Amino acid sequence: MIFGESHGPAIGVVLEGLPSGVALDLEQIAFEMNRRAPGKNAMSTARRESDCPQILSGLYKGKTTGTPLCAVIANENAHSGDYKALKDLPRPGHADYSGRMRYQGCNDPRGGGHFSGRLTAPLVFAGAVAKQILARHQISVGAHILRLGEGQDVSFVTRTEELTPALFAALASMPVPSTQETELMEQSILAAKAQGDSIGGVIECAVLGLPAGIGSPDFGQNVEGVFASHMFAIPAVKGISFGAGEVCANMMGSAYNDPFVFEHGTIKTKTNWNGGVNGGITNGMPVVFSVTMRPTPSIAKTQQTVDLQTGLETSLEIRGRHDPCVVQRAVPVVEAAAALAVCQLLEGVIRL
Amino acid sequence: MIFGESHGPAIGVVLEGLPSGVALDLEQIAFEMNRRAPGKNAMSTARRESDCPQILSGLYKGKTTGTPLCAVIANENAHSGDYKALKDLPRPGHADYSGRMRYQGCNDPRGGGHFSGRLTAPLVFAGAVAKQILARHQISVGAHILRLGEGQDVSFVTRTEELTPALFAALASMPVPSTQETELMEQSILAAKAQGDSIGGVIECAVLGLPAGIGSPDFGQNVEGVFASHMFAIPAVKGISFGAGEVCANMMGSAYNDPFVFEHGTIKTKTNWNGGVNGGITNGMPVVFSVTMRPTPSIAKTQQTVDLQTGLETSLEIRGRHDPCVVQRAVPVVEAAAALAVCQLLEGVIRL
Amino acid sequence: MIFGESHGPAIGVVLEGLPSGVALDLEQIAFEMNRRAPGKNAMSTARRESDCPQILSGLYKGKTTGTPLCAVIANENAHSGDYKALKDLPRPGHADYSGRMRYQGCNDPRGGGHFSGRLTAPLVFAGAVAKQILARHQISVGAHILRLGEGQDVSFVTRTEELTPALFAALASMPVPSTQETELMEQSILAAKAQGDSIGGVIECAVLGLPAGIGSPDFGQNVEGVFASHMFAIPAVKGISFGAGEVCANMMGSAYNDPFVFEHGTIKTKTNWNGGVNGGITNGMPVVFSVTMRPTPSIAKTQQTVDLQTGLETSLEIRGRHDPCVVQRAVPVVEAAAALAVCQLLEGVIRL
Amino acid sequence: MIFGESHGPAIGVVLEGLPSGVALDLEQIAFEMNRRAPGKNAMSTARRESDCPQILSGLYKGKTTGTPLCAVIANENAHSGDYKALKDLPRPGHADYSGRMRYQGCNDPRGGGHFSGRLTAPLVFAGAVAKQILARHQISVGAHILRLGEGQDVSFVTRTEELTPALFAALASMPVPSTQETELMEQSILAAKAQGDSIGGVIECAVLGLPAGIGSPDFGQNVEGVFASHMFAIPAVKGISFGAGEVCANMMGSAYNDPFVFEHGTIKTKTNWNGGVNGGITNGMPVVFSVTMRPTPSIAKTQQTVDLQTGLETSLEIRGRHDPCVVQRAVPVVEAAAALAVCQLLEGVIRL
Repeated sequence: MIFGESHGPAIGVVLEGLPSGVALDLEQIAFEMNRRAPGKNAMSTARRESDCPQILSGLYKGKTTGTPLCAVIANENAHSGDYKALKDLPRPGHADYSGRMRYQGCNDPRGGGHFSGRLTAPLVFAGAVAKQILARHQISVGAHILRLGEGQDVSFVTRTEELTPALFAALASMPVPSTQETELMEQSILAAKAQGDSIGGVIECAVLGLPAGIGSPDFGQNVEGVFASHMFAIPAVKGISFGAGEVCANMMGSAYNDPFVFEHGTIKTKTNWNGGVNGGITNGMPVVFSVTMRPTPSIAKTQQTVDLQTGLETSLEIRGRHDPCVVQRAVPVVEAAAALAVCQLLEGVIRL
Repeated sequence: MIFGESHGPAIGVVLEGLPSGVALDLEQIAFEMNRRAPGKNAMSTARRESDCPQILSGLYKGKTTGTPLCAVIANENAHSGDYKALKDLPRPGHADYSGRMRYQGCNDPRGGGHFSGRLTAPLVFAGAVAKQILARHQISVGAHILRLGEGQDVSFVTRTEELTPALFAALASMPVPSTQETELMEQSILAAKAQGDSIGGVIECAVLGLPAGIGSPDFGQNVEGVFASHMFAIPAVKGISFGAGEVCANMMGSAYNDPFVFEHGTIKTKTNWNGGVNGGITNGMPVVFSVTMRPTPSIAKTQQTVDLQTGLETSLEIRGRHDPCVVQRAVPVVEAAAALAVCQLLEGVIRL
Repeated sequence: MIFGESHGPAIGVVLEGLPSGVALDLEQIAFEMNRRAPGKNAMSTARRESDCPQILSGLYKGKTTGTPLCAVIANENAHSGDYKALKDLPRPGHADYSGRMRYQGCNDPRGGGHFSGRLTAPLVFAGAVAKQILARHQISVGAHILRLGEGQDVSFVTRTEELTPALFAALASMPVPSTQETELMEQSILAAKAQGDSIGGVIECAVLGLPAGIGSPDFGQNVEGVFASHMFAIPAVKGISFGAGEVCANMMGSAYNDPFVFEHGTIKTKTNWNGGVNGGITNGMPVVFSVTMRPTPSIAKTQQTVDLQTGLETSLEIRGRHDPCVVQRAVPVVEAAAALAVCQLLEGVIRL
Repeated sequence: MIFGESHGPAIGVVLEGLPSGVALDLEQIAFEMNRRAPGKNAMSTARRESDCPQILSGLYKGKTTGTPLCAVIANENAHSGDYKALKDLPRPGHADYSGRMRYQGCNDPRGGGHFSGRLTAPLVFAGAVAKQILARHQISVGAHILRLGEGQDVSFVTRTEELTPALFAALASMPVPSTQETELMEQSILAAKAQGDSIGGVIECAVLGLPAGIGSPDFGQNVEGVFASHMFAIPAVKGISFGAGEVCANMMGSAYNDPFVFEHGTIKTKTNWNGGVNGGITNGMPVVFSVTMRPTPSIAKTQQTVDLQTGLETSLEIRGRHDPCVVQRAVPVVEAAAALAVCQLLEGVIRL
């Protein structure tokens, strides 16, 4: 359960149902949080966040106790003044208007408040803890940028053999292995930035080590639904698809059905177009899915909106520090949400 | 909560949390169930189902009581013999293997058992009840085939003005308004059938009448996540995206952000690329999303699999009656799941 | 999830989350249901119920599949005429008035509708299935009448050594071992009946075989809270207490604290005043609790009420067939609810 | 969701689902927290807690935003040294042993850790917020000590006319109105203290203003079950009963059934033995229930236990600062848990 507002005293998360006795590697957690942190280069927002989480409960002598673990991250370096002018001018693509209706105008508008992408910091913290729990069961999670502007990477669906924890570790430092494609992506971002605009992209994620037989065809327990409900809690995610993705609508059944084979005594499928899930249940292959991220809503260009006070149409320019693209920073966020989804799926199946 | 197996005594559903005093239009429910029913033309399976639901509880003098409503549909016309040979040969693309692992080999294999597409019949029943409840709040749900083989329809995202309950009623009888596109789709299905193969497609769905301010950015309550978790409970759904869909990854923020305008005194957006949802909360525009359906797994062509008894790779041919495409029959199923998702979102917000 | 109304077509239950491959002993289920059944002697209502449940799903070749199991019991032998006159005269102690307010007058009033004690039949069915699942883990549940009118039995709290599955089996046939106390109870019931009145009582229940370490101090997961929420779903239950029960309020800490001892190499407590639970978590001793049951609300005596049509105070006489005491029939119901509570507590801890 | 350990950095709570725009009266919250605070007189533990909660999120300009509200209370004045010697000697009546089994020995043992009564401080905070929300709907919650040692108060069940928010306010300062009974209670506490022993008691609580028709007979939603599951999350609560309580087992139906009457045009019951609940649903009368609290487990007397290291039986003396009775401090805790239970019951019925 994540709480906090961008410019309030602190943001944080409470994790319930953790196993007891997991020695947390705090450096690894810091590494994950740093992957998400902004301000690392010209492509990101200038806002710097130290994002050092303080663990208030649930940890004793370096190990999880099994009771609720609460971590908080103090808010610093917030320029609330940047946002004040916009109080009655809902920004297109933002949750200003829908949030105002939802919270009856009482939500904290500063810096996006509870809608801020900053809330993904405690999510990454939670995911980093979840990953360490899953690692004890030989389950690992990795993601990369599949498409961003002109650049694209090779899909995990066609790289079953290569998917290993080592690959995931390498991708954590460099989310697109090909220098050439990385450059194409960077150029696309910089081109958008130069125009005062923004772009989105597609992140692909895989989970290794999930045994066959996890999940259910039924509502609320099926693998795809559980992953999806976690992914849509990430701001800017507008779509999710498994395995071959939207392409599957154009494939024939004979091409799409993954043939079963024996490999080293275990049952596998020759291809993985289904993304490791049949009938809402894992089949033992890597679970692979991709999420579509919309372009960042905050852009420098003048946009059309309405003045909620006067009832007149008007235009606005958003000042402040913003990312022309958040896809590269969202990679560890997708991994974090995926790790939490896996924990939910395994609850009641194995004692984590 | 849906229960049943394809060839067991009956399938059914229990609906909890219904409002009291809703006079159910049983003919309308029958109409919805008939939309889903197979056997209507050459493109569908030859299996005929009467699918007449018997309501066991929760209805008194034609009105909902507010206590749990249980409806059961007896299973008839089942040819269990068709499936026996396949016990140890998992069919590619099916849940035979993943289900065997999940249920330790104890699930009913006949006719797909609990995985059968037949389980969508009680889902459509539940959705038909939900639609009647939503209609009392001026909320309506409609869907159409967006793409199927060579044919495609115009997206709801670009047709905000035309979206009305009347359009939805028309689409219920004819899920693609253009005769030409319908023919292209039918030809695509028949071509797949002729080859002993199958195809998938994309269904687009819209919800009208949802006020702005429903949902939350938080996990478990955000609009997109709630719709997604309902959609993935439909067999063969492999992806979902909102508004512009996957295309948004390639749009610039300035094009994707929907500008706010005043129209007849209410706030709307000029475009609806966000699909009626900002920050996990409705913005008052139609909620529009599309789901990607994989090609039907059952095909006549010979496929490669393994024999779980002997441990040898082998091939299989699936006999029996199967649909070369289920997209056309899935349209009311998507609507039903959407109606249930809306009910979940409104729980605790308005007293239905 | 239990559904149905006393005089509707059927009542029933859907069980979700069952393990796969449990061979159900249908005779044992019938035995449990017969324990609850009315009409067995002069002390019970004359209404006879065959109560033969039909399993519609989730069972294949005599074993649970692991998918939702639905059982329905057809309603027969209902005399709806008995209840018609009371439509606007809420019966004191009954849910006529509160239910009318809850369901806006739309609930089925015949025979108590959804409030009928008859709804405990599917609960006993569910509990009988749960008991068979728990038996595979050496967990057993038993109950007896602790107090009823002038009669009383020895508390389980002081009989730790004697508590065995064999004792529970004996109690299932004879819920008070002492003939003398049984006679006192029967006389109390018959005395109430002779006066056109009713009486309540106290049922005590124990669960054997639960390992130490189940539960949590936290809301929603603590052992006492989970048992309590199941018990209050039984009509007529108005109180629950663990171990020594209300008496503990008058005990000194030095007497109430259960001292730890080693016995055959395992840790036990010398006494069991805490009822096997410390801090919301099992301590390995038998979990013992007692539930207080109010006197049956339906009595023959004239009672005071109001006429909801005319707005006048009036009196009423309830005709029809009613139990002067339901405590003896409620014993298997308490066991059933306890078995379901244990299943909920073990979910996610061991794979049942 | 409450988190924290007695001697960790902080304890706290996250409240989800709050309405937007509730102006929180922080002084009233401090008043409630002070009612629970220890160290006020000779009868309580010498440990002083400032217990000043810091609100980290969910509050903006003094009003709730509607997003999750997190409050933390820093831990101070903790003497961890007091507890070290007891690591392997489980204290009778405490959760030392059951907690060790539950959390595999990894839970924080200092000061009771997550089991500490100190965790009731954030519960009282949460309840104080809930009370302010309920007050906007004319719902109020009050409690008193019904029995403690030799002293007892008059039951709320027989004082329907007197129950008012004003009475509750008076009881908040003086939980037993009669000076004579208060003295009897204090003498009982001091007598226990003089013997190095402890005593328990019974707290009775009432909720005013709940309309008729809230709740359900069904598991998980019935009024009694919801209150019970909240009450058992309070340490030391071992029983709960509604209305007349355990006495009802000995009443005849004709005495126990509450007759309906008209009073000032509204329907009431003449008596309130059912405690305001019929069939799991409120009937519009005050909801009244009492909880039984066991004697405080920490006593100065030598007790028998086992040494988990050596496997030998031994004895122990608990040093440190402890309450000979927590009943007086638990009164606001019971009110807090009741207020949260009411919020849960109203969720989805009225928009708080």
